[in-house]
Order: sequence, then structure tokens, then C-alpha cells
Amino acid sequence: MQSILADRRDGRRHTKADLYDFAKGAASGSIPDYQLAAWLMAAYLNPLDQEQTAWLTLAMADSGERLDLSGLPKPWVDKHSTGGVGDKTTIVLLPLLASCGLTVVKMSGRGLGITGGTVDKLGSIPGFRLDLSPEELKTQARSIGLALTGQTPDLAPADKVLYALRDVTATVSSVPLIVSSILSKKLAGGAETVVLDVKCGRGGFMRTIEDATNLAEALSSTAKLCGLNIRIAITDMDQPLGSCVGNVLEVQEAIGVLSGEQSRFARLCISLAALTLEASGLQPNRSAAEAAARAAISTGAAKQKATEWFAAQGATVNVFSNPESMKTAPFVQTLDHSGAAGWIDDIDASVVGQVVVDLGGGRKTKSDQIDTSVGIRLHCEVGSRIEPGRPIFTVYSSNETAFLQAREALRRAVRVSPNEVDVREPVLRIL
Amino acid sequence: MQSILADRRDGRRHTKADLYDFAKGAASGSIPDYQLAAWLMAAYLNPLDQEQTAWLTLAMADSGERLDLSGLPKPWVDKHSTGGVGDKTTIVLLPLLASCGLTVVKMSGRGLGITGGTVDKLGSIPGFRLDLSPEELKTQARSIGLALTGQTPDLAPADKVLYALRDVTATVSSVPLIVSSILSKKLAGGAETVVLDVKCGRGGFMRTIEDATNLAEALSSTAKLCGLNIRIAITDMDQPLGSCVGNVLEVQEAIGVLSGEQSRFARLCISLAALTLEASGLQPNRSAAEAAARAAISTGAAKQKATEWFAAQGATVNVFSNPESMKTAPFVQTLDHSGAAGWIDDIDASVVGQVVVDLGGGRKTKSDQIDTSVGIRLHCEVGSRIEPGRPIFTVYSSNETAFLQAREALRRAVRVSPNEVDVREPVLRIL
Repeated sequence: MQSILADRRDGRRHTKADLYDFAKGAASGSIPDYQLAAWLMAAYLNPLDQEQTAWLTLAMADSGERLDLSGLPKPWVDKHSTGGVGDKTTIVLLPLLASCGLTVVKMSGRGLGITGGTVDKLGSIPGFRLDLSPEELKTQARSIGLALTGQTPDLAPADKVLYALRDVTATVSSVPLIVSSILSKKLAGGAETVVLDVKCGRGGFMRTIEDATNLAEALSSTAKLCGLNIRIAITDMDQPLGSCVGNVLEVQEAIGVLSGEQSRFARLCISLAALTLEASGLQPNRSAAEAAARAAISTGAAKQKATEWFAAQGATVNVFSNPESMKTAPFVQTLDHSGAAGWIDDIDASVVGQVVVDLGGGRKTKSDQIDTSVGIRLHCEVGSRIEPGRPIFTVYSSNETAFLQAREALRRAVRVSPNEVDVREPVLRIL
Repeated sequence: MQSILADRRDGRRHTKADLYDFAKGAASGSIPDYQLAAWLMAAYLNPLDQEQTAWLTLAMADSGERLDLSGLPKPWVDKHSTGGVGDKTTIVLLPLLASCGLTVVKMSGRGLGITGGTVDKLGSIPGFRLDLSPEELKTQARSIGLALTGQTPDLAPADKVLYALRDVTATVSSVPLIVSSILSKKLAGGAETVVLDVKCGRGGFMRTIEDATNLAEALSSTAKLCGLNIRIAITDMDQPLGSCVGNVLEVQEAIGVLSGEQSRFARLCISLAALTLEASGLQPNRSAAEAAARAAISTGAAKQKATEWFAAQGATVNVFSNPESMKTAPFVQTLDHSGAAGWIDDIDASVVGQVVVDLGGGRKTKSDQIDTSVGIRLHCEVGSRIEPGRPIFTVYSSNETAFLQAREALRRAVRVSPNEVDVREPVLRIL
């Protein structure tokens, strides 16, 4: 390990065998945390090149079990988002893709900070299980075409160790480390075709289109070196995604989209679904793929598939026929626009995300308990016309004190222009 | 700590308060090892500037107790060497300086790798105590003018933690980290005037005169910022220092020099003593200081002081009147020169040092037990005339197998030239 550390420190190339030893040592605990942490800092400052990033990715994927999906009806796909404020895309996309004929198996994470986690959102559906074993995942995917579980300690255990250390050593924002972390989990989860949603803006990890493009290009080239079929969309995360932020509220919004509601968020789901259907080879081109995705929603097939999915994973209530069975917080107050008429020019996703964390709907530290019933409903988006006295936000909080704090922050999140502002389409770039 | 890590990672300046928090956290254990390790790697790659190095030095000195020597008769001095093969200078220098009228209080370390440690050498004198308390140190220094102890956990505890981590994270060879480690211990030990011996060559840490000069200049400027009166000698460590390497053998050699034996090593001791006497203000200039040091040896005053010192620290035998009371290893063999006549052109100190470690006289890892009785006696130095059949080395080993391994390595350590080679003086540069 001393020579691996010295190589990284001095910017020399690692061998593939070195990176396999490193990942195995991280997973087994035979390399102590302090040496891993020193390596991570050295790798932040002397980044791995593309080939070494691919080797580290494969080494982390091979550091534990790898899910063997070879028995499933092909084509199967996986989907991943770098995370954002109000990002409930997975809940729509999985049944939508399955209803179009793909098989989808996915591991999802819990939320931390302003970016929520799919596991927390689905966990707010009464009875929903997120601890499926590899065997259960495969059986369910075979029978209904989709399955989702929380992260399991058996898949890519080296990533689990390294990710936790990156979080506390100021080494999260290193492109090769992000790339190997994301892709190693996809490989360990048995993926062949992957669609990645790289979020760009204040509500996500990459703030600028340049940073997001850098990450997307690194993900794309590393994935190819690792033998993955990959497509990447860079999508806007500067304003909150969709009209709801907060776990139960977001599931309700996803149910609405699956039931046919139109919105900017619904358009993102259709775009990502089309990208996936084309990438998998199931549809010959993007426009045919978009038509298929739209049809799956308008015919009710996607909603039907979601109903089957929720039931298969243990949901004790049909949330489509009874969306109010998911409890929202008791203290509900609406904030109206108090200024002059105009157009919404900006809604800062990071502020809205932080308000939801402060309401108790997100984690400040990994061990925090969250309140899935709180959140924010947005009545407008960038480009919306706004008049005095018209609602901007509805706050779902547990009490008035929390609401009053939220109100102060939310007032600062919105900017109104006297001039007309264009609606911003969610997809910024496709790679 | 996350912001301190991010600052170092991005090469920003720390505040003095940040570095005090960092050192306190390292000493108390409130900052976990993995964060310290990540910081060390970041500091290796984005080094601290001079002012921050001084702040870190002060912070580490203040991370525990600071020895208060204010009750002692002034002037008092401290001495430090960066460590080398055969470096027993402290054993000569301390009684020599005390016999010239200075007060010397010193903490010394144990050896690791090819560089031996004064604690191990003095520890081979029967009964010699190396665990003096701060109070005992002061009392003894007041009564006989000198005292030496092993490192105590109470002084500069942050350095103890950080040094151990540097050793296992490939971050030892960072000049600001070396500087703050050395000087924080001197400050915590109550020093006002310090003479540093920076070793240069294959038997020490700094291999080239450029690297040694860089370190010496950084030590000098940081010491001044910390209020220390400092002098630095850069001395040759390319061939072993003196005629003995190995703990008991080195004590015997030091006893010889204190008893008046002339040698290249004795000249180094006189030079360093003169530098110290001048630095402390006790002697007006270098030549007067050298004369005083020579006189202390020729009159027997230095030897007398050493006898008092050893007795004060518990020695149960007078090693001056009975040097054989220190046991050397039983298997003694001499290696003769087998080639043509000529002049010794090179003796690789790193090879000789490693042979002594392999004989059991040094530590490969910190927890190793050592055998103080083994070692190498050199019968020549660079510049010596050598004839076929004349002895080069005598090996003191515990058995024949160990001797045969040592013999192989030692044959490769020496190079003989057919042309006359100059003797190399030990002091390369004074700062």
C-alpha cells in the first residue's frame, strides 16, 4: 500500500493489479481507513487517467458479488441520476420502461443533504419493501419486468467504504472518483445498458454546464472501456424538478405523471424513457421511442405496471386509487406572491432543497431520521406568469414554527422579472 | 475539519486558529485518523508556506505540556540531528557542551530503519534510565548541566500522532511537515538555542546537498518565526559516520572520542560544539569556541562530565574505566580487502546501515526488539589507503549465518580507486 500511495502522490500510473489490490483491501478492511483516505486525497489532486479510472471501476465492481441477470428476458436496462432537488424520475421511469417492454433492475440510495433519495420516497408508500435479495430482484424482474432495492452490502463493497471516506475527507468532487463510484455499482448490479441523468445546476452536484459535461464525458468514456452500453442526458437542476419536493409529495406527483398529467417534469420522463428505449435497441430511433413512451402513459399501461410493481414489492395500499393514504404533514400554508406582476425568472433549487431538509424531510447527517410527510408544492416554474396574491408555494410542515422559518427562506428563493421569461426545457444536452 | 481539508486540498491559506484546532484535534483524538491522513496528503501536495509552517509548529508545541526551563542556569541549548548511519554525536556533544559551561536538556528518539536512535544507544549502557520526568530532567540539568530522556507523551502529542500517520501514508518527505515536527518538539522541550545537524547523503533522509539545503533553510526561517535562536550544520552522511555502526559499538566509539581519540567523527563533534558555544553567546567567535571544545576534551573535563551524566541517569557500571562491560556480539569476523591496492573511493552508508538492521541492530518496524550487541566496525574511511589483505570491516553478529549474509552485502558497499582520493571533511555547510 505504501508504494500505491507513493505512486498516486507522485502522479504515476497504477497497474490494474494495484487497483484490484486496493479495492479488495478497501472492501475487506485490510487497508486501514487512514491509508485509503490519504490515497483518496492524492487521487483528488493527481487524478487517475481514463484507463486507470476504468480499472478502478472494474476493481470496485469485482470487490464483492456481481448480480448475474443472465436468466432475465432481455433487453434489460439500468438508470441512474446524479441526484437533485425534487428528482422523482425513477418512480415514473421504471414502470414506464417496463410497460414498453424493457426489463429494469435497479439499486437506489437514500437521500443526503438537499438531494433526496428514491429509497426514501418509495419507502413512504405503506408496506413498500426496499430490502430485496438478489434472488428476489431477479424473480420479480422476470415476472413483472422491474424491481428496485436499496443498496446491499454485498455489491461493490469497496465503493461503500470509499464513498463514506470521501464524504468526510473533502474528496467527493473528483470526477474519476465519482465516475468509478457510479459505474462500479451499475456493473455490480448486472447492468449492460445504462442511461445516466447528470443533473446540472444549484440543486445538483455539478453547478455549471462545463462541469456537468466534463463528468458526462468521463462517465461515457469510462463506461465504454468497461463494456457498458451507455447514454447520458445532462438535465437542468437549477430550479426544483417538478412541482413537489418532499418524499410523499413527490410520490404523489409521480403517480400523477403516470396517470397522464402533463408538465415539464413529465416531458423529462418521456425524454429519458425515449433515450433508454433507443439505447436498448427496442425502438429504432428517438422519435419512435418517444411515441412509444407517450402511448404507454396515454393507454394506462405505465400506470398499470406501476400498480403491479408497488404491489409486488409489498405496498399495502393502492396509492393510485387512494393517493391520500400517504399522509402529508398537518400544517399546510400557502405563500402568495406579494410583489408586482411579472414572470418567474428564477427559483433557487438549493434554497428549496434546504428548506425541505430543515422541515425534516431530508438528512443533514447519514444517521438522521426523516419525516416523509413534509415538503413544498410549487405553483409555478421559471417562465410562469405571476400576479400579486397568486400562490407560489404551499408548505407542508409539522408545526407553525417550522413553517415560519421555511417562509423566510422561500421568499429569497424566487426572483420575478417584469419582462417575459421563456420556459426552460429540462434536457440540456444528450451524449 | 471539512473546511480545513478543503483549504489544504485547494492550496488556500489556513488561519493560525485553524492550525491550532487541527493540532489540538490530532492530540486529543477528536479528529479521526482518516481526516488527519487526508490532510497530510493534501499538505504534501499543496505545501504550507513559511508563516503557516511556523503556526503549525507552534500549534503542535502547544498541543500538550511545554517544558518550563526558566529555573535553570542559562544559557541552555538543545541539539538535534536528522539522523544517520553511525550517528552517535549526541553522546559526545552533550557532556562536551556541559563541560564548557552550557546547560543541555534533550529529548531523543528510538531508531527506525537504517538511522539509529540515541535512546537505543544509551539504553545499551547497563542501568541507564531514559524515562526521566520533566521534574527529574530539570533537577538533573540544574545539578550537573545536562539531562536526556526518551520522548514523553506529554510533549507535542500532536506531533506523535501526525508522525505515526506520515510514516504509513507516504507523506514523510514533505519539508514543511518535517520542519514542524522537528521544531515543535524542540519548542515543547523548552529550547531557546538549538543547533541542528542536517545529514546529507545515502545514510540520511536528505540525499543531495540541494535537498539538505532546502530543508536547512526552511528549518532556519521557521525557527526564527517561532522565536528560536538556531544554527544549522549540513554534514556528510554518504559514508557511515565514524568507525562504528551498532548500538554498543557506537557508545564505545563515543567514549573513545570523549577520552581524546582523534578521528573524522571527533572533528565533527568539535565543529558542532563550537557552533553551539558560539550560538549560545558563551564564546565570542567560532575559533575561540573550537579551542574551548578541544580543551574540554584534552583536559578530561568532557569525559568527567560524561561519567557524572551516566551515573546521574542510573548507569550501574563506569563504562569509561570498564568499556568491556557493554557486551558486544559473540561471533566476530573481519573482512579483508581482496582486490588491488588503492584508495577507498566510496563506502555506501545505506548498505552498511541496512546490514546492521539485518543483523538485528535496528528496527524494520516500530515494534521490533533490537540486539544492541551487534554491529560493524570500519577500519577505513573514504580517502584511506588500502592494500590487499588489510581489514576493511569487522562484523559483530550473533551467529555465522548472519555474518555470511552481512559479508555479501558489505562487499558491495565499498569501491576502491587506483588513484588517490581525498579525505572528506564532515561539515559541508553552515547556515
